[in-house]
Amino acid sequence: MAELVYGINPVLEVLKRNPEVVEEVWLHKRSLKGKRYQILELAKKHRIKTKVINKDRFNPPGLSPEAVHQGVVAYLRYFDYSDLEDVKRRWESLREPGLVICIDEVEDPRNLGAIIRSADAAGVHGVVIPKLRSSQVTSTVVKASSGAVFNIPIARVTNLKHAINFFKNEGLWVVGLTHKAEEVIYKLDLKIPLVLIVGNEARGIRPSLLEMCDFKAKIPMKGKIESLNASVAAGIALFEVLRQREFSN
Amino acid sequence: MAELVYGINPVLEVLKRNPEVVEEVWLHKRSLKGKRYQILELAKKHRIKTKVINKDRFNPPGLSPEAVHQGVVAYLRYFDYSDLEDVKRRWESLREPGLVICIDEVEDPRNLGAIIRSADAAGVHGVVIPKLRSSQVTSTVVKASSGAVFNIPIARVTNLKHAINFFKNEGLWVVGLTHKAEEVIYKLDLKIPLVLIVGNEARGIRPSLLEMCDFKAKIPMKGKIESLNASVAAGIALFEVLRQREFSN
Repeated sequence: MAELVYGINPVLEVLKRNPEVVEEVWLHKRSLKGKRYQILELAKKHRIKTKVINKDRFNPPGLSPEAVHQGVVAYLRYFDYSDLEDVKRRWESLREPGLVICIDEVEDPRNLGAIIRSADAAGVHGVVIPKLRSSQVTSTVVKASSGAVFNIPIARVTNLKHAINFFKNEGLWVVGLTHKAEEVIYKLDLKIPLVLIVGNEARGIRPSLLEMCDFKAKIPMKGKIESLNASVAAGIALFEVLRQREFSN
Repeated sequence: MAELVYGINPVLEVLKRNPEVVEEVWLHKRSLKGKRYQILELAKKHRIKTKVINKDRFNPPGLSPEAVHQGVVAYLRYFDYSDLEDVKRRWESLREPGLVICIDEVEDPRNLGAIIRSADAAGVHGVVIPKLRSSQVTSTVVKASSGAVFNIPIARVTNLKHAINFFKNEGLWVVGLTHKAEEVIYKLDLKIPLVLIVGNEARGIRPSLLEMCDFKAKIPMKGKIESLNASVAAGIALFEVLRQREFSN
């Protein structure tokens, strides 16, 4: 549950896309211009309660002292998770080969947010996260996603295996991103309908899920380190799908 | 200046690559097995002072209380920046077309670290950062880079323009990564020797540097958000270079 969202762009994004989830908006009194003004106007338009407060008395409850809030905070009612059928409807209505990302036990909310941001940008139809041992959609995730959590369906499931079987039954192929793979991702055909699985920052994808993969792919490592940041690796894989589907031949 | 490095892999990395910069290593007394044992052995081998301390008295000065240190901390003498000539020597000795990344005013140390990690993995010959308005190589950067800061030359310069001109004179082409570009990055020939410029998280590349670019390239945005996380965008661009150079006909 994302209790609050802060920063100009994330708050603006949620007010544009999902004003119904916003309960209240707090703003610095100073400089209500440009995007800040737009935030105030959007909040008014949707009859959302606003508090315009002097900077020295601006102390929104629940906000970490280190948060770079830019004088803008929105309190949310709840985060509205989707289900697997919503994800399926998305690729069906767009008449595209399905593209889903399953994020297995990514723990860092900044990584989860950045992956969801990349997923939106790459045209992914849905994101699946597990309920346990994974970051949930918190305010840090909303912020790191730059509001992308409100643009694509995010399904939260008890059992990722069941979710993957659901997509298999819908004709999607399962590709696991792992440095243990023998094949480099650039050599796979990613134009087929697919579920991409990415794993935990340290442990990677769990063995029980690796077993379910039709294909395993790795990002080539030319240097001395063994792995990339989890959100960077997911971004590279997602954009390789986009490149193959829309920018090759 | 990176005063300290923490976490098993980053400390192991610096002890393997650059033991000469390590002044002292602190370790939890408990479970000196596997990589922890390797750390202790490497420190001994290089005659580095070690402190093995009970967990409940483990309180290394300078370490943030939230740092996930895994019971391992290394204090560094200094961070040893390279110069532009070191970068040039790198591509010359490898007999490869030059590949340099200039990171213009990236402020978040986790982003800077993740970019350097991707740069190492993609086979970049050197990283250039400005002295001002940019994250420097701090302990957070070392950690986020997974130790990659010790694998490739990182040059810190007063004036990025001069640095870019240095590389231009060495025959490199200048490619700016910006969403203002008209051309999608997949359509550019990235096999030529090149300097890739990436910009600040919010402002992008400064106009004075954009003017110096021979080519501008964007990552296509298929969804609703306008941009990617800075380190994800840099990773996608760097691996597109690697893909074109080593994994396309």
